Amino acid sequence: MTGNRGVVYQGPGEVEVQDIAYPEFELKDGPGVNPANVGRKVPHGAIVEVVATNICGSDQHMVRGRTTAPQGLVLGHEITGKVVETGPGVEFVREGDLVSVPFNISCGRCRNCKARRTEICLSVNPDRPGSAYGYVDMGGWVGGQAQYALVPYADWNLLVFPDRDRAMDKIMDLTMLSDIFPTGYHGCVTAGVGVGSTVYIAGAGPVGLAAAAAAQLLGAAVVVVGDLNSERLAQARGFGCETVDISEGDPADLIEEVLGTREVDCAVDAVGFEAHGTGQDAGQEAPASVLNTAMDVTRAGGSVGIPGLYVTGDPGASDDAAKEGSLSIRFGLGWAKSHAFFTGQCPTMKYHRELMMAILHEKVHIAEAVNAVALPLEEAARGYQEFDRGAAKKYVLDPNGYLGTG
Amino acid sequence: MTGNRGVVYQGPGEVEVQDIAYPEFELKDGPGVNPANVGRKVPHGAIVEVVATNICGSDQHMVRGRTTAPQGLVLGHEITGKVVETGPGVEFVREGDLVSVPFNISCGRCRNCKARRTEICLSVNPDRPGSAYGYVDMGGWVGGQAQYALVPYADWNLLVFPDRDRAMDKIMDLTMLSDIFPTGYHGCVTAGVGVGSTVYIAGAGPVGLAAAAAAQLLGAAVVVVGDLNSERLAQARGFGCETVDISEGDPADLIEEVLGTREVDCAVDAVGFEAHGTGQDAGQEAPASVLNTAMDVTRAGGSVGIPGLYVTGDPGASDDAAKEGSLSIRFGLGWAKSHAFFTGQCPTMKYHRELMMAILHEKVHIAEAVNAVALPLEEAARGYQEFDRGAAKKYVLDPNGYLGTG
Amino acid sequence: MTGNRGVVYQGPGEVEVQDIAYPEFELKDGPGVNPANVGRKVPHGAIVEVVATNICGSDQHMVRGRTTAPQGLVLGHEITGKVVETGPGVEFVREGDLVSVPFNISCGRCRNCKARRTEICLSVNPDRPGSAYGYVDMGGWVGGQAQYALVPYADWNLLVFPDRDRAMDKIMDLTMLSDIFPTGYHGCVTAGVGVGSTVYIAGAGPVGLAAAAAAQLLGAAVVVVGDLNSERLAQARGFGCETVDISEGDPADLIEEVLGTREVDCAVDAVGFEAHGTGQDAGQEAPASVLNTAMDVTRAGGSVGIPGLYVTGDPGASDDAAKEGSLSIRFGLGWAKSHAFFTGQCPTMKYHRELMMAILHEKVHIAEAVNAVALPLEEAARGYQEFDRGAAKKYVLDPNGYLGTG
Amino acid sequence: MTGNRGVVYQGPGEVEVQDIAYPEFELKDGPGVNPANVGRKVPHGAIVEVVATNICGSDQHMVRGRTTAPQGLVLGHEITGKVVETGPGVEFVREGDLVSVPFNISCGRCRNCKARRTEICLSVNPDRPGSAYGYVDMGGWVGGQAQYALVPYADWNLLVFPDRDRAMDKIMDLTMLSDIFPTGYHGCVTAGVGVGSTVYIAGAGPVGLAAAAAAQLLGAAVVVVGDLNSERLAQARGFGCETVDISEGDPADLIEEVLGTREVDCAVDAVGFEAHGTGQDAGQEAPASVLNTAMDVTRAGGSVGIPGLYVTGDPGASDDAAKEGSLSIRFGLGWAKSHAFFTGQCPTMKYHRELMMAILHEKVHIAEAVNAVALPLEEAARGYQEFDRGAAKKYVLDPNGYLGTG
Repeated sequence: MTGNRGVVYQGPGEVEVQDIAYPEFELKDGPGVNPANVGRKVPHGAIVEVVATNICGSDQHMVRGRTTAPQGLVLGHEITGKVVETGPGVEFVREGDLVSVPFNISCGRCRNCKARRTEICLSVNPDRPGSAYGYVDMGGWVGGQAQYALVPYADWNLLVFPDRDRAMDKIMDLTMLSDIFPTGYHGCVTAGVGVGSTVYIAGAGPVGLAAAAAAQLLGAAVVVVGDLNSERLAQARGFGCETVDISEGDPADLIEEVLGTREVDCAVDAVGFEAHGTGQDAGQEAPASVLNTAMDVTRAGGSVGIPGLYVTGDPGASDDAAKEGSLSIRFGLGWAKSHAFFTGQCPTMKYHRELMMAILHEKVHIAEAVNAVALPLEEAARGYQEFDRGAAKKYVLDPNGYLGTG
Repeated sequence: MTGNRGVVYQGPGEVEVQDIAYPEFELKDGPGVNPANVGRKVPHGAIVEVVATNICGSDQHMVRGRTTAPQGLVLGHEITGKVVETGPGVEFVREGDLVSVPFNISCGRCRNCKARRTEICLSVNPDRPGSAYGYVDMGGWVGGQAQYALVPYADWNLLVFPDRDRAMDKIMDLTMLSDIFPTGYHGCVTAGVGVGSTVYIAGAGPVGLAAAAAAQLLGAAVVVVGDLNSERLAQARGFGCETVDISEGDPADLIEEVLGTREVDCAVDAVGFEAHGTGQDAGQEAPASVLNTAMDVTRAGGSVGIPGLYVTGDPGASDDAAKEGSLSIRFGLGWAKSHAFFTGQCPTMKYHRELMMAILHEKVHIAEAVNAVALPLEEAARGYQEFDRGAAKKYVLDPNGYLGTG
Repeated sequence: MTGNRGVVYQGPGEVEVQDIAYPEFELKDGPGVNPANVGRKVPHGAIVEVVATNICGSDQHMVRGRTTAPQGLVLGHEITGKVVETGPGVEFVREGDLVSVPFNISCGRCRNCKARRTEICLSVNPDRPGSAYGYVDMGGWVGGQAQYALVPYADWNLLVFPDRDRAMDKIMDLTMLSDIFPTGYHGCVTAGVGVGSTVYIAGAGPVGLAAAAAAQLLGAAVVVVGDLNSERLAQARGFGCETVDISEGDPADLIEEVLGTREVDCAVDAVGFEAHGTGQDAGQEAPASVLNTAMDVTRAGGSVGIPGLYVTGDPGASDDAAKEGSLSIRFGLGWAKSHAFFTGQCPTMKYHRELMMAILHEKVHIAEAVNAVALPLEEAARGYQEFDRGAAKKYVLDPNGYLGTG
Repeated sequence: MTGNRGVVYQGPGEVEVQDIAYPEFELKDGPGVNPANVGRKVPHGAIVEVVATNICGSDQHMVRGRTTAPQGLVLGHEITGKVVETGPGVEFVREGDLVSVPFNISCGRCRNCKARRTEICLSVNPDRPGSAYGYVDMGGWVGGQAQYALVPYADWNLLVFPDRDRAMDKIMDLTMLSDIFPTGYHGCVTAGVGVGSTVYIAGAGPVGLAAAAAAQLLGAAVVVVGDLNSERLAQARGFGCETVDISEGDPADLIEEVLGTREVDCAVDAVGFEAHGTGQDAGQEAPASVLNTAMDVTRAGGSVGIPGLYVTGDPGASDDAAKEGSLSIRFGLGWAKSHAFFTGQCPTMKYHRELMMAILHEKVHIAEAVNAVALPLEEAARGYQEFDRGAAKKYVLDPNGYLGTG
């Protein structure tokens, strides 16, 4: 019998790589598993040997203790792997296929999946629409920062890379298809980024950098990335973005220095509720700061794509309203400018195939853009710590040695 | 020389019909005229004899004293008229044409107009994108609750009715094309209302009722209208809507009684910033109440159309944040449901032609839906008062006797 | 063991109701079954007791002998039924569910299905994208003009009616969801029919009438239906359409009499390759006649929806080019008017849910529009004959007495 | 008084640079001027000193004698210039502005212009929707292969470059905004080219090369260009396209050699009615050849963008049907694959601003892609001849020495 190792949440600030159960075609009870999902049969599932699995900023929300994630939760929702076994209900995916796993689990049978809204699948999470691997309140599907992981509804969920060898050559890029590249791209698509656009990307973490690369791929004329972290801003400049350090003043002023005008065509919020203020207020959390900036710097008629996570409750928030997920938003400003706002998880499956094609044909170098670095699975804790301290890196775990870290 | 009479704002709670200047092809100085617009030549303009001009809820914002509208402002932006004179730059519109005037003035030459975003025209208002007749901070174009009015960029702005006699038979319907019918329709279109949709319309004032009629025209399966005003709710039921009296409890509970489910596919906010609470809080202003309800009752993946006005500043608001246009919004709730939000004025011109066709071919009876009543211009003050007290009527002024009120 | 009876193609002009095999969860060999599909396991399938199954104009193409359909083919692709058994891979559909079956079979797992293009599913037909029950060259899935039928990928394909009793009250309407109502609607949607449109529908057979009803549901101002068959035109007038008898002259002239203008906004070709000429040429087949008329009568900038079937080869065509599927089209006329043309089968699943809602909430009366009549299964041959002679009826077979014909 | 020189059509195969009238704000009678347009006042016009004006493939249709273009017609519809005088109705464009002129003239006041369909403006051409400078049957607006040209509705039509010096640095790129770059881009946009697409571009003339560059800008994964002209194919390879020489065989076979699959996602017809056959038939005109190839090589569900010109009548065609604009099209093939077809002129104004931004910010090098070369106006005849012989160049005339050819 094969063993399995995975990254386990141990409480605020702490993760540990432990022995975990090898997947079976059934969802077993465990930390964070919704009772209604316990014992759920998964004959439509595939077990993948994980080739690459990334640490995500939204994992950090849990590890920082800002959610109700239970101790013992196996983390990880950014998974690329090789299929090693398929359930009896799997017809098209085959053993040996190299695959990308969309972070949002979906059934391929409900009203929302049929409408390409896999981010709000109605069947996989008994609590509410939408699910993900290894995440609090998402149904209890086991995380994939591990050697092996179970993917339900495999024929529906998995993107099979057409040529395994060619794919392995680009594996550090392709691993971004499971979440951040489609997520950043979705932010841009909903914001209306297109050929010739000027774009403001709030946040230079991995999602922000992925959004910036996506904006370039979509033909944007100028991409301006804003953040407080100078190392991350340098990373953005490294692939042709303009940058503004929003601790230095009002973002509109800073954008004017770059563009000669205070407004961009489109804005993407790649930060979410853990936002900080700008200028003199840069030191403090200010959960509506990015949204208010977005309205300020986006031209009338523009749209704001909001892949950055906003939560329904935030026990660790700085004020009572934010604890209940309420933010003080200058909504009248957006209204006067006829803005449109697009929120929510990215429906990964809508985009991963076309982005795979762009990667395989060298139209984008996403691993470079987000500064992807591989780390042995056993060193996951270090990755979490460095990432939490603001390293301008995207950490990719290597649980089975495919990335050569071992 | 022809005289002119118009409805003039006299201060909070007070309007008066007075002699005003007959229009010329130039924007003269006067109350509320932006200095940069004073003396602006309007050779592209047409002077219309006003056939019908409606009182709008957004006029009430000014008359209630919740804006900085100056005394002496000639009110009115919902204008239908007969062309009596055209400037030298007018080529297609002709004297005698019966026309609908979009409430938002636009130039037909700027980037936004070329993209059909006439609600944020860049050329007509020196303060910011977007303009309207007879409105505070909108450039100073003279209002049309008057016998005669000037329409700039007439070839671009005016919708000419194809057959004058047939149009006069439907004039009480067609007068709704200048604002509330397209505005309600825009709310529905942006909310994604389509064939088979279930829809929640917040607000049973004229815009809400117009939105409800628009939803039916778009093929909605069920239209649920919510308000606190029982007379207006009765009006909504009169043309086949379901209704919920939101003073009676949580809107989601009330919707469940109607639909058997707590959520609708689409929601339209036809109220805006002067919203009140629901259930026990129905007596108090609660500026984010409608938005929060909309997120609560709209299904995951749905959109919210927001034609209801939100302002950048509200001196009369109940709390400090709202005074600056900031609202405490449960944004995380919307994010978790992947909602999209569409704000701003309606780009009237995008819709008025198709809605005219629907009226002329009897596919919709908008005058009935909003309970339009004609009133002589001289009785405008009564119309303002009754409307402010919540009458379930849409007041249409008759400045030249075409509507037979005289 | 349960028996089964079905409508079987016996050669040009002849169909017969015979004993056929009761479905199993495997695709067995038989007339018209693609060798690559023989023995295909269908654990994801459901067996339905057929409640209603309609005769379609495209069945007539086969029965008229204009295809290579083999003798012994069980016909029928318009199926509504009650689930009586589900395969082991079915998770959401349950025994007893009343369901609509989209006529185009799809897998819910391929690239096209994921993009809502179920009409060109890549997995169910070894010959080419797209499939259907009981149809030549469509993979060999057994037809549903029978007492029992097998539906593969049941969780994906089936639309479950929310309330069985309420659905039975509307069953003659709901049975149109399996094909002609979505097909006519798709023609209108792709043609750009919307609120206020003027529309020309070529053909007053069941698909044309369904398209006309769909256009009304979408808010069209005027729907003009053209055909040579006066009984069918009378049927169209019966629910508020305008009509033109194209044997009487040039369609543009006839449309001008109705509309006062020679052009409509949108056109739908609900005829296809078995078209006849117009005016003096009305007696002869003229396969490009409808397309050429559509270009002639559609205004510049308009679109043409083409749900009418065009074939890659037509052995029975009147000229050599048409035998190879080549038509002499006045393409330059369309080009000069910037037309867009949308072809192909309707992706039924994209629309059936919203149209079900419209039916259940009485926004459309599709059974009345197409003049649906129920017939015992055993009288199918009569239905085929009457329909072929041009009866203005839509024949609905009643294999198990649910429609009260027995 | 200023003189003017322009390129004049002298009969089949012959053009000559002659003295022509200096523009006035009125459309004077002359060769090809529609009687209804004679004497038309143009107070809304601007006179531009032409900085660059290109020879277009559609000019060649006339010069080859395949249209009814009258002798004496001043040619040229691809114009970039400097405003030297504006009519009294011009408000926003100013003397000295450097501007791009969309080749399709539009009024900015009709129903189609308001819907962004400037290619089918209803007001400028008495014959039918749509117009262009210097073109047969387009209303008679004087051509711009001249030193000076009149642009009607200047505030609407003209794209003003934001910085004149920066624009002059890119003038050989920016001159492509008047026609071929938007035209090729429109072909791609309508064909659905996006990130990750595989695309087939039929034709490696300037429009085909512009389409190929546009496809790259839109993020296409692989762009395959097909032609018979090896020099033009080499030009396509020069900026990263794959190519197929369609004289060498069946295009699907050739594409399979490049892509490993016989089908692409999207196809663009940049050839039009003067197409030739493929493989052994490459030597003969075959007007439907490109359309039939496009259906053959485009995957099911794909779209075909058709910016290549098809005419309503072609006196010089090789067969009778084509003389009347009828083509023998394998329409059933397209239908079976659910193709959509988009025809007509490009609505230049919809795209020119965003493409200008892409040029100014170095996201595309369109002059290089189409191999633009400048030529003195007086050498226009040489440009026409070389282009007609298939030179892989885009000829840009330099009437006033701005391009340094003098």
